[in-house]
Amino acid sequence: MKVLIIGASGTIGKAVTKELEPYHSIIGAGRNGSDVSVDITSVDSIKNMYAQIGNIDAVVSATGGAHFAPLPDLTPELNEVAIESKLKGQIHLVLLGLDYMNDNGSFTLTTGIMMDDPIPQGASAAMANGGVKSFVKSAAIEMPRGIRINSVSPNVLQESLDQYGDFFPGFEAVPASRVATAFKKSIEGAQTGKNYEVY
Amino acid sequence: MKVLIIGASGTIGKAVTKELEPYHSIIGAGRNGSDVSVDITSVDSIKNMYAQIGNIDAVVSATGGAHFAPLPDLTPELNEVAIESKLKGQIHLVLLGLDYMNDNGSFTLTTGIMMDDPIPQGASAAMANGGVKSFVKSAAIEMPRGIRINSVSPNVLQESLDQYGDFFPGFEAVPASRVATAFKKSIEGAQTGKNYEVY
Repeated sequence: MKVLIIGASGTIGKAVTKELEPYHSIIGAGRNGSDVSVDITSVDSIKNMYAQIGNIDAVVSATGGAHFAPLPDLTPELNEVAIESKLKGQIHLVLLGLDYMNDNGSFTLTTGIMMDDPIPQGASAAMANGGVKSFVKSAAIEMPRGIRINSVSPNVLQESLDQYGDFFPGFEAVPASRVATAFKKSIEGAQTGKNYEVY
Repeated sequence: MKVLIIGASGTIGKAVTKELEPYHSIIGAGRNGSDVSVDITSVDSIKNMYAQIGNIDAVVSATGGAHFAPLPDLTPELNEVAIESKLKGQIHLVLLGLDYMNDNGSFTLTTGIMMDDPIPQGASAAMANGGVKSFVKSAAIEMPRGIRINSVSPNVLQESLDQYGDFFPGFEAVPASRVATAFKKSIEGAQTGKNYEVY
């Protein structure tokens, strides 16, 4: 299968690439290039990416930013980071990629544990995660031509504990390699409308 | 209690007003006036509303629009209706209202059954519902001064069957009066971070 991985240079993106590349043809995309450059907060950038790549069998979104701030400090402006990137960015990858997706292909987006197990400063990220999860569940029943859509919800990564561990006290961190298997299940399996929790 | 109801002239807003007005002081807000005019898609309009009203004990959001379209016809532009209104509009009522909320007050937002039980053409609305639900769950753990936040998720309303019934085949419609009791539970009860399903 021809698999497009957006956020290919990130911790999850690298793990998904490693999991899939023995069996599939991988195209890596991200803000800093790899095979194709894309900024998911820009509709034009997403359109350009798909126009360059042409038809595909699977899209993996392992990207999406959000601003972390104590709730009383969260302004509409700061909330826009998650709205534009983690929420709309990922949904636009689907809406604008549908015409490039081959029959029986799949989209797999990324949510995250904060929507189920909240952390301080995480309300904006949780909002985006919940929006993506519900979009996936609803969009799945309308996907044309056998196309499927799922999301993967990772716990905090073992690889990210140095950077983010203080935000997740008591969370049982998971290795990115476990998260990658959930993406593999989404792509090579047959389920749709699922949010695979890797907790 | 001084209760601000946004969307007071809608079917749910009217039912909530009827349920609460024997016991509380109600301020009705909406696009077409009642007591105060507000357009929740405008940050400035929300700020003006709160500045006019001053301190409050409870905010009820019984409003929020979304565009219904078959998934292949859903564009980033059409998805903006739900992003700006049902999702960001409701969240901004919280972020901008926090300073006006009295100690131990409450915010109650509206989600909807489509995020749990999807319908064709409902992906954009489901996205907004899921985003609001997850925001509520996460924001609840950080609310200052004993302030609480919940959401109410209504099924399709009996009162709306003439207009929307064809979108919800086989759904067991509920009367708006049942939805109103969930808002009462949120306001007068003591729970926080809940999404009360009226299904």
